[in-house]
Amino acid sequence: MQRVTVSIITIGDELLIGQTIDTNSAWMAQELNKAGIWVQRRVAVGDVREAIWQALDEEAQQSDIILITGGLGPTADDITKPLLCDYFGGKLVVNQEALDNVIYLLEQVFKRPRLERNMKQAEVPDVCTVIQNKKGTAPGMWFEKEGKIFVSMPGVPHEMKGMMSDYVIPQLTRHFTLPVVLHRTLLTAGQGESMIAESLMDFEAALPENIKLAYLPSFGMVKLRLTTSGEDQATLEAALETKFQQLQGLVQEYLVSTEDAGMDVVVGKLLKTQGKTLSTAESCTGGYIAHLMTQTPGASDYFWGSIVSYDNSIKTNLLGVPASVLTGEGAPGAVSEEAVQQMVRGCLEKMGTDYALAVSGIMGPGGGTEEKPTGTVWMAAGNREKISTTRVKFPFDRKRNIEQTAVTALNFLRRFILENS
Amino acid sequence: MQRVTVSIITIGDELLIGQTIDTNSAWMAQELNKAGIWVQRRVAVGDVREAIWQALDEEAQQSDIILITGGLGPTADDITKPLLCDYFGGKLVVNQEALDNVIYLLEQVFKRPRLERNMKQAEVPDVCTVIQNKKGTAPGMWFEKEGKIFVSMPGVPHEMKGMMSDYVIPQLTRHFTLPVVLHRTLLTAGQGESMIAESLMDFEAALPENIKLAYLPSFGMVKLRLTTSGEDQATLEAALETKFQQLQGLVQEYLVSTEDAGMDVVVGKLLKTQGKTLSTAESCTGGYIAHLMTQTPGASDYFWGSIVSYDNSIKTNLLGVPASVLTGEGAPGAVSEEAVQQMVRGCLEKMGTDYALAVSGIMGPGGGTEEKPTGTVWMAAGNREKISTTRVKFPFDRKRNIEQTAVTALNFLRRFILENS
Repeated sequence: MQRVTVSIITIGDELLIGQTIDTNSAWMAQELNKAGIWVQRRVAVGDVREAIWQALDEEAQQSDIILITGGLGPTADDITKPLLCDYFGGKLVVNQEALDNVIYLLEQVFKRPRLERNMKQAEVPDVCTVIQNKKGTAPGMWFEKEGKIFVSMPGVPHEMKGMMSDYVIPQLTRHFTLPVVLHRTLLTAGQGESMIAESLMDFEAALPENIKLAYLPSFGMVKLRLTTSGEDQATLEAALETKFQQLQGLVQEYLVSTEDAGMDVVVGKLLKTQGKTLSTAESCTGGYIAHLMTQTPGASDYFWGSIVSYDNSIKTNLLGVPASVLTGEGAPGAVSEEAVQQMVRGCLEKMGTDYALAVSGIMGPGGGTEEKPTGTVWMAAGNREKISTTRVKFPFDRKRNIEQTAVTALNFLRRFILENS
Repeated sequence: MQRVTVSIITIGDELLIGQTIDTNSAWMAQELNKAGIWVQRRVAVGDVREAIWQALDEEAQQSDIILITGGLGPTADDITKPLLCDYFGGKLVVNQEALDNVIYLLEQVFKRPRLERNMKQAEVPDVCTVIQNKKGTAPGMWFEKEGKIFVSMPGVPHEMKGMMSDYVIPQLTRHFTLPVVLHRTLLTAGQGESMIAESLMDFEAALPENIKLAYLPSFGMVKLRLTTSGEDQATLEAALETKFQQLQGLVQEYLVSTEDAGMDVVVGKLLKTQGKTLSTAESCTGGYIAHLMTQTPGASDYFWGSIVSYDNSIKTNLLGVPASVLTGEGAPGAVSEEAVQQMVRGCLEKMGTDYALAVSGIMGPGGGTEEKPTGTVWMAAGNREKISTTRVKFPFDRKRNIEQTAVTALNFLRRFILENS
């Protein structure tokens, strides 16, 4: 079976001047992979006719499918659509369904006046199959030329995602004979990528040709993913499962989950399974743990809330941390074991949940001292019977210190729950 | 003056299978732009020797500078460095300074054993200038070939950033005669991109050749940026300032700030200038507003904390929202004007701040009703004298609804502060 390959071309000066981070490509690659299609190149070019034309030419030589995003917005420089007309040999015509959609969205959803520039978005080359856009005013376009498929979509993430899921991937699946692709992913925390790789050297060397191991590190966690592809689903599944079991055994000390999920989802599931509730008392993370826990729909089943005590007065007045702990000669201070212990106690009392998690630390860039350098964090997890604490130190910048504190604290809570239930 | 151009090549299967989002390129482009260097193409390729070689060849034909990230980690497939040796005609040798750095980092910072795979990271082609990595074990490499500059850096963001700031950009600035590039950016909120573009049509048409206007929309805000480049700083500054003043006048109804800052920074500065403090009472945003407000170092001067009342019991027990408002036949419910008004009152009382901001809504995907469809949010901003409320409705997915609610609520608070002080 031949590998079916994709090049992604993203169009837009905003990507090249660094004003926009390209999150589309990663999502597209994931969805295409699930369908057995491989992204082999990604190219970003500006709103420049020659640059776009050249990219189309080059990528058509490399890949079976060329997916294009961007260059179609109402204030785009009107380059992409005329270019696509010329490239595929057609002329711009109004697509009635797209026009109806533009009018519907402007009048009923966005409640904005009809502007000429919006109306023009319903124009498409007469040599394409139009892909309707349920979430925005710019339609997508599907072209075929010399055996290659070209699809042009808007760069707005939710518009592109809607088109990919509803139309592009189903059509590609019909068009090509695609392999079965299977992934199994597990999540580890608390061990570095190099150390894990070291302990998995023999395992990796012994993997069969069609099973690959990938290391995916992020914020104190490393995901390990086994991927296989081929023709027979049952055979592939059995071989993958054997290796996945073996892998679990090798990393069990650091294993957090055998699902492809984030730490917040793992903790949420654990709480839900136990029928228990959680609240947080956050100082240095400023609500970020609560934000992570409430990303998932239905989180209110197990996550009740948070007291973000950024100022010391809130630690004292709402969480009952004695002022003598926080300030004064020889006091332990806000970043201390005593402070986070009392934050957990106060949180449990005020919020009435089964578990509470508290963090207090110095995220930087300033605020560190010799005794408590920047990156120092005290964490406490507890229930009505017991409170456990730990002190950690992160070496990163403010943003990453906050993210890593949140994940590490949630993992600390996870272990506390498992050990105390 | 000739435009000095860059191609960015990112190497790594993790980018092509969608496991990693490329945030490096945007940062690199921003920093290069400030120095008067233009990114004209970005290409992502996998850990495949032929694909990397081809990308080097192709991009060397397009750009003056080729910046390469990724493919150098301890578990990378050992492809990039041998390839660079072959491409530039050298052999791998141990760089003593890089080796000392690897040993220092492992022993003193990461506190991990010396692994062979880490030691190998100190090997570099003998035809490059080595760029020391202060934040990680993989050194960078600077090559020159046929008048083009090639720089290979690790893909880990803070390692790459350190090298770019400390070495690569200063060296490039010395190597090329670069133009002066100036930007002026302002932030608007509450008006769509199309509508703004419509009102700026004449302004845009009348801009001189060397001043460009860019629309940068995100989450209910649109940034407008004027960019100019040329040789004489004073002339450019004067021309840009005139146009920037004109632009401000044209969008003043929606103008939030004349700085290139986020809404959280604008609100933080306003509070700091007034010497006032803020706390939040968050239901549907789950702490995300507090997280935004505490991203900035020194936020504790004006942001005191938050009560995240995800569960109704917290709204009642901590914020004093009467149970009769929240539930029961004919009750307004948690997503209501009455609820957010009381949340502000409770927040002001419990937190003791000058201002409070409260939000309660339905972020989806479920939970909507005919009367209160998914995306409905009530917001309230207040001080001890007055509370203002508003109801909005967002049409997005959960993640974006949360983000847009946070920004819209902060803008609502900003207007409240300006009107009531």
